[in-house]
This record gives sequence, structure tokens and C-alpha cells, in this order.
Amino acid sequence: MHLHPARSWRHCQPQFSTVWSLQGSHHGAQMQRIQAFLNENNVHTPCLIIDLDQVRRNYDELQRLLPRMSVFYAVKANPAPEVIRTLVEAGSSFDVASVPEINLCLELGATPARLSYGSTIKKERDISYAYSRGIRLFAFDSEEELLKISRAAPGSLVFCRLAVRNDGALCPLHAKFGCSQTMAEDLMRLARHVGLVPYGASFHVGSQQTCVGQWDAALSRVKSLLATLQEHSIDLQAVNLGGGLPAQGYADAVPAVSEYTDAINRAIVGHFGARNALLLMIEPGRAIVADAGVLQAEVVLVARKSNDDCKRWVYLDAGRFNGLAETLDEAIAYNITTSRDGEETEPVILAGPTCDSVDVIYEKKEYSLPVGLRAGDLVQFHSTGAYTASYASVAFNGFPPIQTYCI
Amino acid sequence: MHLHPARSWRHCQPQFSTVWSLQGSHHGAQMQRIQAFLNENNVHTPCLIIDLDQVRRNYDELQRLLPRMSVFYAVKANPAPEVIRTLVEAGSSFDVASVPEINLCLELGATPARLSYGSTIKKERDISYAYSRGIRLFAFDSEEELLKISRAAPGSLVFCRLAVRNDGALCPLHAKFGCSQTMAEDLMRLARHVGLVPYGASFHVGSQQTCVGQWDAALSRVKSLLATLQEHSIDLQAVNLGGGLPAQGYADAVPAVSEYTDAINRAIVGHFGARNALLLMIEPGRAIVADAGVLQAEVVLVARKSNDDCKRWVYLDAGRFNGLAETLDEAIAYNITTSRDGEETEPVILAGPTCDSVDVIYEKKEYSLPVGLRAGDLVQFHSTGAYTASYASVAFNGFPPIQTYCI
Repeated sequence: MHLHPARSWRHCQPQFSTVWSLQGSHHGAQMQRIQAFLNENNVHTPCLIIDLDQVRRNYDELQRLLPRMSVFYAVKANPAPEVIRTLVEAGSSFDVASVPEINLCLELGATPARLSYGSTIKKERDISYAYSRGIRLFAFDSEEELLKISRAAPGSLVFCRLAVRNDGALCPLHAKFGCSQTMAEDLMRLARHVGLVPYGASFHVGSQQTCVGQWDAALSRVKSLLATLQEHSIDLQAVNLGGGLPAQGYADAVPAVSEYTDAINRAIVGHFGARNALLLMIEPGRAIVADAGVLQAEVVLVARKSNDDCKRWVYLDAGRFNGLAETLDEAIAYNITTSRDGEETEPVILAGPTCDSVDVIYEKKEYSLPVGLRAGDLVQFHSTGAYTASYASVAFNGFPPIQTYCI
Repeated sequence: MHLHPARSWRHCQPQFSTVWSLQGSHHGAQMQRIQAFLNENNVHTPCLIIDLDQVRRNYDELQRLLPRMSVFYAVKANPAPEVIRTLVEAGSSFDVASVPEINLCLELGATPARLSYGSTIKKERDISYAYSRGIRLFAFDSEEELLKISRAAPGSLVFCRLAVRNDGALCPLHAKFGCSQTMAEDLMRLARHVGLVPYGASFHVGSQQTCVGQWDAALSRVKSLLATLQEHSIDLQAVNLGGGLPAQGYADAVPAVSEYTDAINRAIVGHFGARNALLLMIEPGRAIVADAGVLQAEVVLVARKSNDDCKRWVYLDAGRFNGLAETLDEAIAYNITTSRDGEETEPVILAGPTCDSVDVIYEKKEYSLPVGLRAGDLVQFHSTGAYTASYASVAFNGFPPIQTYCI
């Protein structure tokens, strides 16, 4: 049975008439594989199961819908070696953020030409290391970073990351990344001056972007930057459209993938013409792995804390510190199923197992779970393939990190 | 040079006239030891240095100030084996939250009688395991948990955790823990009925509690519970005053340790008389290890993102995901020093190295750091011995967990 935030719960009867059905086409097949694996294997909870077939399908579908674009998978979303290997075999390129991510991709068969060192915050010795491994594509958004790249990776191709609006993103990216257009112009001229190749402009519309129009808005700023730089005889060859493509399977509805890709394709043609020679890149993470994962947890305790408590507390062996970090501020609302689905439900507060009050999963969003739920029952969080296992704490409260099984 | 939030920075001249001086008595000696270690050893940043002498001094001082109390160190604050071993040798008991924490303490020489399984959210098989290792002291705050203990640890001593006010705590503990007094009464009668020993009442006034009066308020509720239970011929023998004693060395001032312990000792006598026979327990974590630690980070990048940015961004190789988790919502403001202290300063935004906008350390609190700060410079966060290393992510963005050195 499909459980969901009470925004749906309060207004929709029956519960299945919600934004997203677990019986959806791809998801149905994937759930069968994952459920079969869980039935056949006595895995300890909490654990994360990744369906590699689904990862591959998501990649292929995105590449089909964006035929002109090179897909650089954002490794940070899920760096499980099996996921990387699947995407190497599919032909993906990779957006990496650190030396360990570089080593991981290279060891699993990606060539250096398929890696983009997309972090704008890199140690100079890490840039040197990347350069020594053959990487020639680097991002920056500030003068100090640009000068580090010029010293440690001479002659490389550089992207300047523009700050753009993140409205509509469930996880907006904030002023931490990207610079103003005026600064980008100055820095690209400096890049040429210090012997780097001013190669492209990049941006990020914010993670789990719910508004398909944000890429168009960002691309209009890129177009303006390209035009100004041309006046200085700098012809940028590439545009990197960053991340932001959403998972489809969270509780809050988003447009279909094809609506995003149609809007992006239209925006490219609108701003740069149908026959432009730009090299186009995109860096999906969530859109490739989120819907391929299911996190299984066990109920540790169901409790009321006073005789007149109107909501039960349901404590699980997974929480903010071992897999569900993106429930911080309840930003991401996962769809949840339990081993007692079909029984009568009541609203609950969901919490993790640690002695930390931050470790509450959902309190404001009103999830409704079976009345009969008790210690030992199983709970599954859907579309948890991205930003879960790699966020987990090393051992907070002594609990080990969550185990990933790729099938 | 001592750097601090601009609340002090704006109002205080010179900067040293702040709430807490790095030249403070114990801290001076500790800093010398840690600084000598850092000078003599080429450690990679980010890293956490723990001064075990300071851990021991903090334990001894607390035991001296609270002569009637048994100290149960909250292992979750810092489970480094060297810290546990130091406290085993000092004679401490331990508040544990999980099977790995139990194993850690037993392996390092603590006897089962010195362990309290203080989590109120335990799997039944974990209770069984604890019981099999000889532990006989368990906490609960709900009926289901109590029944699990009765089945898995028959005849054990149980604490019921009361919900109490957390006002004044920098990290309040919320409705996640503790039950109402009426429920506590019912559950203690049930505990006797199911063959457990109704042993004590416990509470927690909230972590980093800034108000010395909160223990008195909580103890008045405990007194009322004890009186009601006596009417049912249940004589509780113990009171567990939980955690909440603060670190002294954060940027926001707190009363001296002795002001807390004086208030606690007075409250005990006031509510239970000078000759009471209660067994008194306390569970400090932060108060023992926080001020014994220094986290050293390296500046990765200093940047302005537009030509009219009034604040610089200072990006470090430590952030929310590898050591500074308690800067979430800027709850804990650490004192910060740099390798350029003494030079002119300007306000900064401090951020971690990952491609996640959550990984901003201080943006609202106005820290002021040297104008000349640049990539490669060192930055130290003081009083970072608690709730840092064990919170770190396994590998977010590929960055490894922070390394701890105990000296």
C-alpha cells in the first residue's frame, strides 16, 4: 500500500489517487526485482538496494531525450562502484568533486577525457593530481581558483560557473556557488591571459528543480555572457547545464522527465539556434539513481509519550544519520510502504534511532501508517538511490553506516 | 589571535575582550600540547586533536564538584577508544546507546555494572545482547520499550525517562524523548507487574544547557513522581540527571561549571534533603570532551562572487559533513583561530568543501578573519572534542571522514 504525506492523505480518497503510483511502468518491474532480492536474502536493516537495470534505463532514457548532450553523471549522488561501472559501460561521462571520486571513476574504466572536475572548491594539490591523471576540464567561479588551475593544470579547458536563480528547487544551491556575469567576463579574460582555454559557461538551477522553465532563464544569461566575451574575441565552445533534473518518485509531484528535456531542447534552439556548434553537457545525479533505490528499515519502537498524545511516534533503525539525511527540514518527502500495508492507518511522527533530537524524519509532514505497526515490522523508503548512503555518518551513536546492495 | 562572532566583534574592542579567552588556565596548557603536536607532526587536514590529559582533568573536576554522583560518560559525544580508555582508568561509568558502544566499553575494560543502556529506542535483540553481556540497567519511556526489556532482560533495573523543559539549551531534545508524569507512574507500576525493578527516574534538560536552574525545575518533577509512586509502594532508589552540562569554550558564554554543580547540589538537597539515600547519576558528554579537542582545517579557497560582494567566502576542507555537523542552523558557535592571527580582519562567510549548499558553516553569525587569509592557511576550531568526528559522513563528495589523533 502506498503511503504519502497527509497533504495527499487529507485530500485524497482512496490513498492510491496520489501523484505517483508505485505501480508505475518502470517502477513496477524494479520493485519486483528489489522485493524478490529482499525476500530471498536475509539482509540486515537498515540497507539500501539499488537496481542497476533501472540506473541503466534512466541513463539511456535521458540520453535519448537529450540527443545532443553529453551526460556527466554527478558521482556524489551515489558513488557505489557498481553504479559507476554500469554508467561507464553505458557510455556516460562523470562530474567529479574530489580525488577519491577521480580515482574511483578511473579505476572502473572511465578515461580521463570523460571526467570533468566540476567542484569550484579544490585544493591546488588535488588539481595537480587530477592533471597528472590526464584530466583537462576544470570548473571555477573565483579568481583564486582560476589562478590555482593555471598553476596546477596549465593549458587546461575551464568552465566558469555563473550564479543563476534557483527558485523552484527543493534543494536550492545558494550563493555558495557561481559568480556574477560581470565577474565571469573578467575571469574568462584573465583565464586566457594566464594560459588557460576559456572553454565554457556552466550553471546549476538547484537540485530537484520542480520548474521546467529555469534552464531557459539560465541559458539566456549564458547567451548574454557568450555575446559579451565574443566582443573580446573569446569564443566559448561549451555550455554545461549542470544538475537539477528531478527524481520522479518522491511524494511531491514533478513534471515528467520529457517535459524537462523538451523545455531544455527548446531553450537551446531558442537561444543559440538549431544549427549551433556548441558542445552541450548536463550533470544529472538524482535523475539517474534516485528512482533506482529502495531503503529498507525496521521499526524499533512505536510509542505514545502521554495518554492524550494524538500522534504515535514510530522510531526506525534508519534516520537522518544513516541514510535519510535529505529529510533535513523535511526537504525531500519519500514515498513509504510497510509490511502491514492494507490495514487501517493513522498519522505518525517518524524518527531515527539515535539519541539526537535532530534525528526526526517527518514531524510536520503528516504521514499516515498502519495502526498495527510494531517493533520488528519493515518499512521501505522509495526513490532513495541518491544522496543517502554516501551522506551517512561513520558511526554516530555507534550505529554503522548503511549497507548498499546493488542488484 | 582570538576570533569570534561579530556579535562580539561589533561591540568589543579589542577583540580579546570577549567572553572566553584562549589564554584561560587549563586551556592554555592544553593548547600548548596540541600546538606542539601539530608543529611536530605533519598531519593531514582536516583532523581532530584530543588532549587526553584535559579529558582526565575535566572528569576529575566534575567528580570533585559532584561528590555524591556517579558519572556515566555519554559515549556518543566522542567514542574514540583512547578517550574511553582514559575514562575507564579514571573510574567513570558509561552511558551507551548501541551494541557497538557496549562492545567498545567492555573491550576497553569497563565492567558491565558500569554501563547504563540509556537509549530509549532499542531493538529487542540488542537488549538481549546487552543482557547477555551482563548489563542490568536500562532506560525506557514507553510501554512497548518496557515490555521489550521485560522479555529480553528479565529482572533488570529500569529507569523511566520523564519529559522536562529544555528551555535554555542550545541543542534542545524535543518531544522525541521522555514521557509525561502520569504515563511514568503507570509504566513504573507496569514495570513491577512484569517482573522488572522500578529503579529510577531520569531526564535530560537539553544539550549545552545555558540555564543553571533547569536541573532544579526537572528535579521538582522527579520528586513529585517519587512521591506518587511511594503511594503505590514503589520506592525508586535512583535519579539520573542526564546530560546538559555545557562545554565552556564555545563562543557564546555560559556560567562556570561550578555554578552548575552548585545549583545541582543545592537542588538535590532542597528536594530530597541532605541525608537522602538516593543513588545519583549524571551523564555528561560535552562537558568532558568538548574543551579537550581542536579541529584543524586548511583554507581551500577565498573568494568574492561579484565585484560588489561585501563579504568574502572562506572555504575550508572541513565542513558540515566532516566534523562540523553541530554548526547546523549555526547552533554551536566555535571559537576560531588562524595561522594569520594578528593581521587586520574582515567579516567572512565560512563554508565547507562539498558541492552541497547545506555545507555552509557560518553565514548569519558574523565571524571576522584576517584579510590576508588564502588557500593553504590553517584554521583551528576550538572546543571541538564532542559531537564532531563521530557525526562525520562516510564519504560525501568522496571526502574521507575526519581523522582523530589522541595525545
